[in-house]
Amino acid sequence: MNTREDGRADDDLRPIKITRHWLDHPAGSVLVEFGRTRVLCAASASEGVPRWRKGSGLGWVTAEYAMLPASTNTRSDRESVKGRIGGRTHEISRLIGRSLRAIIDDKALGENTIQIDCDVLQADGGTRTAAITGAYVALADACAKLGVPRALTGSVAAVSVGIIDGVPRLDLPYVEDVRAETDMNVVMTGEGTFVEVQGTAEGAAFDRAELDALLALAEKGCADLTRLQREALSS
Amino acid sequence: MNTREDGRADDDLRPIKITRHWLDHPAGSVLVEFGRTRVLCAASASEGVPRWRKGSGLGWVTAEYAMLPASTNTRSDRESVKGRIGGRTHEISRLIGRSLRAIIDDKALGENTIQIDCDVLQADGGTRTAAITGAYVALADACAKLGVPRALTGSVAAVSVGIIDGVPRLDLPYVEDVRAETDMNVVMTGEGTFVEVQGTAEGAAFDRAELDALLALAEKGCADLTRLQREALSS
Amino acid sequence: MNTREDGRADDDLRPIKITRHWLDHPAGSVLVEFGRTRVLCAASASEGVPRWRKGSGLGWVTAEYAMLPASTNTRSDRESVKGRIGGRTHEISRLIGRSLRAIIDDKALGENTIQIDCDVLQADGGTRTAAITGAYVALADACAKLGVPRALTGSVAAVSVGIIDGVPRLDLPYVEDVRAETDMNVVMTGEGTFVEVQGTAEGAAFDRAELDALLALAEKGCADLTRLQREALSS
Amino acid sequence: MNTREDGRADDDLRPIKITRHWLDHPAGSVLVEFGRTRVLCAASASEGVPRWRKGSGLGWVTAEYAMLPASTNTRSDRESVKGRIGGRTHEISRLIGRSLRAIIDDKALGENTIQIDCDVLQADGGTRTAAITGAYVALADACAKLGVPRALTGSVAAVSVGIIDGVPRLDLPYVEDVRAETDMNVVMTGEGTFVEVQGTAEGAAFDRAELDALLALAEKGCADLTRLQREALSS
Amino acid sequence: MNTREDGRADDDLRPIKITRHWLDHPAGSVLVEFGRTRVLCAASASEGVPRWRKGSGLGWVTAEYAMLPASTNTRSDRESVKGRIGGRTHEISRLIGRSLRAIIDDKALGENTIQIDCDVLQADGGTRTAAITGAYVALADACAKLGVPRALTGSVAAVSVGIIDGVPRLDLPYVEDVRAETDMNVVMTGEGTFVEVQGTAEGAAFDRAELDALLALAEKGCADLTRLQREALSS
Amino acid sequence: MNTREDGRADDDLRPIKITRHWLDHPAGSVLVEFGRTRVLCAASASEGVPRWRKGSGLGWVTAEYAMLPASTNTRSDRESVKGRIGGRTHEISRLIGRSLRAIIDDKALGENTIQIDCDVLQADGGTRTAAITGAYVALADACAKLGVPRALTGSVAAVSVGIIDGVPRLDLPYVEDVRAETDMNVVMTGEGTFVEVQGTAEGAAFDRAELDALLALAEKGCADLTRLQREALSS
Repeated sequence: MNTREDGRADDDLRPIKITRHWLDHPAGSVLVEFGRTRVLCAASASEGVPRWRKGSGLGWVTAEYAMLPASTNTRSDRESVKGRIGGRTHEISRLIGRSLRAIIDDKALGENTIQIDCDVLQADGGTRTAAITGAYVALADACAKLGVPRALTGSVAAVSVGIIDGVPRLDLPYVEDVRAETDMNVVMTGEGTFVEVQGTAEGAAFDRAELDALLALAEKGCADLTRLQREALSS
Repeated sequence: MNTREDGRADDDLRPIKITRHWLDHPAGSVLVEFGRTRVLCAASASEGVPRWRKGSGLGWVTAEYAMLPASTNTRSDRESVKGRIGGRTHEISRLIGRSLRAIIDDKALGENTIQIDCDVLQADGGTRTAAITGAYVALADACAKLGVPRALTGSVAAVSVGIIDGVPRLDLPYVEDVRAETDMNVVMTGEGTFVEVQGTAEGAAFDRAELDALLALAEKGCADLTRLQREALSS
Repeated sequence: MNTREDGRADDDLRPIKITRHWLDHPAGSVLVEFGRTRVLCAASASEGVPRWRKGSGLGWVTAEYAMLPASTNTRSDRESVKGRIGGRTHEISRLIGRSLRAIIDDKALGENTIQIDCDVLQADGGTRTAAITGAYVALADACAKLGVPRALTGSVAAVSVGIIDGVPRLDLPYVEDVRAETDMNVVMTGEGTFVEVQGTAEGAAFDRAELDALLALAEKGCADLTRLQREALSS
Repeated sequence: MNTREDGRADDDLRPIKITRHWLDHPAGSVLVEFGRTRVLCAASASEGVPRWRKGSGLGWVTAEYAMLPASTNTRSDRESVKGRIGGRTHEISRLIGRSLRAIIDDKALGENTIQIDCDVLQADGGTRTAAITGAYVALADACAKLGVPRALTGSVAAVSVGIIDGVPRLDLPYVEDVRAETDMNVVMTGEGTFVEVQGTAEGAAFDRAELDALLALAEKGCADLTRLQREALSS
Repeated sequence: MNTREDGRADDDLRPIKITRHWLDHPAGSVLVEFGRTRVLCAASASEGVPRWRKGSGLGWVTAEYAMLPASTNTRSDRESVKGRIGGRTHEISRLIGRSLRAIIDDKALGENTIQIDCDVLQADGGTRTAAITGAYVALADACAKLGVPRALTGSVAAVSVGIIDGVPRLDLPYVEDVRAETDMNVVMTGEGTFVEVQGTAEGAAFDRAELDALLALAEKGCADLTRLQREALSS
Repeated sequence: MNTREDGRADDDLRPIKITRHWLDHPAGSVLVEFGRTRVLCAASASEGVPRWRKGSGLGWVTAEYAMLPASTNTRSDRESVKGRIGGRTHEISRLIGRSLRAIIDDKALGENTIQIDCDVLQADGGTRTAAITGAYVALADACAKLGVPRALTGSVAAVSVGIIDGVPRLDLPYVEDVRAETDMNVVMTGEGTFVEVQGTAEGAAFDRAELDALLALAEKGCADLTRLQREALSS
């Protein structure tokens, strides 16, 4: 029998906590927790758009992701001190930005910019999926504050899935993540359609049946997260 | 009727050309062409491994991707001049490295390093998938030259697929790529299993049926590329 | 009559909150709050010292300070993205490091390194003094965990003081800080001696009497903070 | 009895030499010598102000400090070659800029920029205080040349003081600086008020009586330097 | 008797090959080969000039040179990854730019910019001289395409010469280059005048007679290259 | 008649001044003046050589060149602040290093490193040639101090020559340099052989007769400088 260290069923999320208004300054801000993973998501709104977009009547949403040095098991070096951003950081920042832009109507947003910052305070696996899930809520608050709630055409949530010892599992903590043969991050809308699917064979390549099982698990997880996002926003 | 500008059927690859031994110095080198996309792939072998791997008995394969400034429609700035590597470049370099490591037996490679360089000479869509497909052949030549052909546990090839005007299509050139609603890059082994699946909704989010159609198309394309790789290596 | 916006007396600290063990990974961690200023202080311990100190038998304590982009009134650019650390960040990182090293016995610490990270989650004036005050508590926890409590030869706390409309005040929030004619940051040991005194005339230069008044106020504030640190550590 | 290696009394400055017009190009330039410490101070004037200040009618004074590689005991690496400016350099550049701005009337300066460059040709302790003392004279010459002598609202000079073997001393050369238990840099106006006070416990923390003794010594030293600046400017 | 490894006479060029239109996107492009040295030269034209030249009515030609990592005997690190351009790269880029500007009439070019990119695909000595020789042809094609053929006031070609074992030789491959006592790169116009002469004593300093012999050899080589450029352009 | 602004004959050097021992710390140091051009040359000696040269028994001489911001007519930005070294700086640093290594016997130097720093305090044309001329003297002093005078196999000096209004002239100041049609820097040994010849057509390309005239002028200038170097070293 496959039991998970934390006692969850294979298709259970970790305890999810979404705390809105965690910061005073930005238009929207959320502390999101997926188990011990803790990400601070801020949505700062400002008038105007980058130069290349001026006069288009369209808004702009962009995102930056980073990890605090002490967020990881062993302290990691600060990218500002190294003077360059690593590939992984770039990759995740771009993923978060694309995911949020998928549910934004640039025209309804008008020539405003919303800058998303996702800073990982504590990392225990799934930081990018927690970041997307929390950033959506911060973005929704920012749009409301800007008076353009209709700039949101839907919602997005994200979850990780993976195969451990041959068994597909939902929402992997660090101990499972490092053992996973296959690892997939899936971003979905609240209506159940796909925004991003990123699957990687860590050990052996995976076949179509395994891929299908992982996608089904991700659909379940994103639906749960969508419900939790709605509850947080209506409270 | 949906006809493609270049007259291909929706599930046809562009003309593929794999020229081995294009360079004199590296252990393996390939000029790979997917239509007008032209990527120079080199596999440079050297004894020893990075410091963090010394004494492990294991080898190391890593990759770097870059575009020549004049390879694109409009000249793009040189990253060495800008002093920093962009997120897209980082992302693709990491993808190529992971894809090739998936079919490498680090033990059989021994404490040797193979550095893959994929430099895009001309870009017309699908540069990352051409790079992976060509880099595999260069890597195979390098393993042979190093006397460790068994370090290869299989082959990898990659192809892009996308939905244009509602129709799934294989191996997108630039004109189709910019119009695609959904864009997916798939890396597969010669045995037909998946190494990487990266799908992105460019316009609207996509549903499960669309995802399945794209995966089927990618399976067909990778099988074709695998055959072409074998032909090139046996000539 | 000079009343402060938040109703405090001129020699009152803001509400201070010191939350230990806020993170799971580092040896010591504290979330310190001076009113709405919120700084996450982590003390990560590792065996060994930098190369230039090897074989000396002495330990090493160093510190890095940074602000999250959304911590400020108006979002500030991320230093990792800019690719260089600003002068203010450098200056404060160095101040925190010197302040903590003042109460560390390098010999008793042995060849261990403690890396302090002070990340400002929310900024409302006095972030550097809050950082030092909180970092001391995290450092004390780290020394205890490392089994070298005697590496601490005392305690340090820090507070800002300034002259607003001719009146000396303790622990300035942002609204007072920007209006201060003179601004001083004072770091003191638990025994009431000085570790750092940094006074700057923002408007007019200040005379000796004003300097004396500010120093007296700082002595009072640091004594209060020392008491609060002790309470936090004994709870 | 405490005698200093160079025979000075504890409250004596080193031989001070201020040579004006050392360079042909900048509006003001001074070679300042505090004993063997030698700093070349240039004040380059240009019309206009940085973008963020345009249209304000106000001028701008800013400063950069650097050390030549061969100025120090052991050659130090060139910061341009390292590609980044160190924390100490940043800190001193900022200190010089703040000190000079303290005696500048931005309105009287008009929309002009004066850029101060302080390059240490030879270092023997007290380079930052020599830099401020010399830069003031270069700045005065530049204001005169620009036809805005009234942009200067006073003068500034700076000196280092420290406690060596329990004895407070003025204007420390390198051999004393490295042995000082406490080290303080003080910037004062010609009228005897304070612009900056930066005291650091190098060994043990210092008490209020020691702080008072150091401040008195600094007041004496700055008064002497102010007199020497006046003599230089009237010659 | 001095025979060259590749059987050439001392005043013979290696086999030269100039392939025009090697790329689809830039206005001019040439793959130039000097023996096994292979350089891809692209001339990208764009309307407008850099800010400092706007409104002058004058055009601008500039150049960048780089080597692919696998172009050299032993793989060289990528400058974009190192984050800085080396001195040799800078030097050669500047040389190419100056050489081409020597035969450009900025007025006839009008406010257009031509950006030359010379990327070394394979290096076997003489990459900078091959680059200049090929870049001229690409530039000529770009001027024709822009409709400003008269912007060219002449042609340029370049060749390396050197003294090996006391004997002056033309167009050195790598094996000769590393053994040369003196190494000279000469850029000449089609009319036989000099644009650049760069001679360096690698081993012993050279005397006036040796210098004269090298210059004569370079004149012969550049005349040959000029003829080959004309043939390529007229085909 | 062509008279030079400063009254010199066409083949006259500017007034040359070589002041040895200008700095206390480095093994050799020289303030060299070519008219108003003033360069501080330091030769810092240290035991050991860079890693790639260890165990070879050979020494190493390297050089860095830089200009102080206020050395030029109009202030130039500091390269340490820009975070990258410009091409011109790189080029000149490399030229100085090569020139000095031409007269160094690496074996006689032993495994020692001499680092040359040439910092331009004031620029009025010919800074690189003044730097080489002064650096040789500093290097000679450093070799003597290291006890390896025989590491010097000869001397080097350098001078600029150019054609202004059709007339060849020696040692160009800034006003002549900017008007020169052709500009050449020549580095020669004390025996009258060539180390470097770098000629550039600034306006029109130059013919062989002009090149010969410039070389003759440079031979005369370098011979004069060699004599002045000898006088300085024997005083």
